[in-house]
Amino acid sequence: MNFELNNIPTRTLKPRNNGITMVMDKGMSTRQAQDFIEVAAPHTDVIKLGWATSMVTPKLEEKLQIYRDAQMPFYFGGTLFEAFLIRNQFDAYRKVLDKYKMEYAEVSDGSINLPHDEKCKYIDILSKQVTVISEVGSKDDKKIIAPYRWIELIKAELEAGSWKVIAEARESGNVGIYRETGEVRQGLIDEILTQIPQESIIWEAPIKAQQVWFIKLIGCNVNLGNIPPQEVIPLETIRLGLRGDTFDHFIST
Amino acid sequence: MNFELNNIPTRTLKPRNNGITMVMDKGMSTRQAQDFIEVAAPHTDVIKLGWATSMVTPKLEEKLQIYRDAQMPFYFGGTLFEAFLIRNQFDAYRKVLDKYKMEYAEVSDGSINLPHDEKCKYIDILSKQVTVISEVGSKDDKKIIAPYRWIELIKAELEAGSWKVIAEARESGNVGIYRETGEVRQGLIDEILTQIPQESIIWEAPIKAQQVWFIKLIGCNVNLGNIPPQEVIPLETIRLGLRGDTFDHFIST
Amino acid sequence: MNFELNNIPTRTLKPRNNGITMVMDKGMSTRQAQDFIEVAAPHTDVIKLGWATSMVTPKLEEKLQIYRDAQMPFYFGGTLFEAFLIRNQFDAYRKVLDKYKMEYAEVSDGSINLPHDEKCKYIDILSKQVTVISEVGSKDDKKIIAPYRWIELIKAELEAGSWKVIAEARESGNVGIYRETGEVRQGLIDEILTQIPQESIIWEAPIKAQQVWFIKLIGCNVNLGNIPPQEVIPLETIRLGLRGDTFDHFIST
Repeated sequence: MNFELNNIPTRTLKPRNNGITMVMDKGMSTRQAQDFIEVAAPHTDVIKLGWATSMVTPKLEEKLQIYRDAQMPFYFGGTLFEAFLIRNQFDAYRKVLDKYKMEYAEVSDGSINLPHDEKCKYIDILSKQVTVISEVGSKDDKKIIAPYRWIELIKAELEAGSWKVIAEARESGNVGIYRETGEVRQGLIDEILTQIPQESIIWEAPIKAQQVWFIKLIGCNVNLGNIPPQEVIPLETIRLGLRGDTFDHFIST
Repeated sequence: MNFELNNIPTRTLKPRNNGITMVMDKGMSTRQAQDFIEVAAPHTDVIKLGWATSMVTPKLEEKLQIYRDAQMPFYFGGTLFEAFLIRNQFDAYRKVLDKYKMEYAEVSDGSINLPHDEKCKYIDILSKQVTVISEVGSKDDKKIIAPYRWIELIKAELEAGSWKVIAEARESGNVGIYRETGEVRQGLIDEILTQIPQESIIWEAPIKAQQVWFIKLIGCNVNLGNIPPQEVIPLETIRLGLRGDTFDHFIST
Repeated sequence: MNFELNNIPTRTLKPRNNGITMVMDKGMSTRQAQDFIEVAAPHTDVIKLGWATSMVTPKLEEKLQIYRDAQMPFYFGGTLFEAFLIRNQFDAYRKVLDKYKMEYAEVSDGSINLPHDEKCKYIDILSKQVTVISEVGSKDDKKIIAPYRWIELIKAELEAGSWKVIAEARESGNVGIYRETGEVRQGLIDEILTQIPQESIIWEAPIKAQQVWFIKLIGCNVNLGNIPPQEVIPLETIRLGLRGDTFDHFIST
């Protein structure tokens, strides 16, 4: 930090189990990735190459090398896994993970119908090869999952070998744990937290009001995901009570 | 493409007549233009220097040279044409086109009142100097054009020498072919398509839901315009059925 | 300007007292700052390092040097001042200003309760060290200030030594002088302008419709603030009547 200010909330240190900021790269150039690393690396724990953007991004290997050189973990979005799976190309997917020396993989079923025990089997298989992050929630805003079912799914995926479970919101922040307006499904979150330790979940929260809501509920070291690259610095100030939205929240503690 | 996936929709190859992605540059720096080229050039067909931003953008010639070196076509937005025309400086405009060795020009009447036969005359004149793209639709959200009139205007402009006709939406995607909410005027599009070949039109579609709507209606090789630079990679995944929004649409084919 | 167009509104020249564009940098990298300077420097008068983002931005000094080399004034957002003040660290704040050789400082009370005579005392003290910009308006959308009170506050702060007073809107443009929807509180602005010279105020106007509204009301040389870096070129075209939104407004003059 550039200045010494008293009474700032204590952030966990990287590598950390909670307080994670997961960022979505939806097609940055190699130089944009360098710029991102310069500014955001100290505050970022892992980068998701959004959905299947890695398929059509030129100079992908060069960009991944920039992330590797900065000791910045990264993984392909779950939609890429689903795109291989639905074409019966799961083995080819594993070879892609090998080819790019991926250390993380996402297992999701946001766009496909996959029996949950089968999904857990893939989590189990891949967790022997890489660190698995799995995702619960549909990308279809009409498929509402009941709170008790969220809890069952998250528990089963953690038991199957997921390092963390992501709560779905998409890039737009208007499905899964949010209503179409972007408003948090508060009852759902409260109920999930009665059964699942907060550090096991990464809450997708692309919109500022969503980040603020989770930080006020869980604290500065909540795990948040799908953060746009240019919002990492703003998010860090919200975590630290250095922006209007949480200024009072931490100062009164 | 970085990975081999079966059953991906077949994109046309550049230079192409349909499947065009037209991108809006509203004032990128020279280095931002290079970054854009690195990532988006394979998926971009033509760049519009939005409205009259070229008037006040420093290092314009250097940026255009970056586009030329990448064999990336570009043109000045129609508002620049209109700004010269309304000041009775059409000849000066033609000299500007010459000075910057422009190979394309846009003829529009989104901000001025121009009798349509006169507009077609300008299309005719300029089409002898450059490839003309003309635009139908007002930037004023109160000026609604009836479907039969859209068809007449588009037909006349193609006959006058336009290579393609752009259907207006602005950077914001809330006028012309869209309602104020950004929702597509579906009846209008359906009616236009009964009379005009889809490859003759570039649909301005700056918002993701608009891109998805047109891709589902017309297919992966629909012509789309006013794409923000950072949305070219995401758009390409939508065209290919590699994002949640069109994942089912193409996989079921 | 790249082209010669007749009848373009006359912009004031830098350094200027009105016609100011104040830009918000919320965490640009050093290279992004260079890109910004290349494109936007001729049209930008001063950069605000948004709220307390300067606290957690790596390579801060290197970035400030880029701004200094370009003769581009900059200052820390008022929330940083407030964060020091509420911790009784005002002296430490002054040392931070010295350390970074700041020539400007913002005094605000958007997130704290500060008796107004005390705020004016800080304006007075700091105005002996730097050029002070002060800000009126709360970041809390529930704290509505009556028009007569806006006028009293602005007058007192100018008398206390503020170079300009900023009218609050936040990065989002939905508090202070705007309603929650972003719509301008027109009656408030009209009333303020009966008592305060327009050149004494910088109106925060992050959203295009807000910029257009002020330009139509006050003219091309209105002072506007919280402009996102990539919107400086678009804003300049709006000031000059070279975008649809103000095309008619200036051409008819």
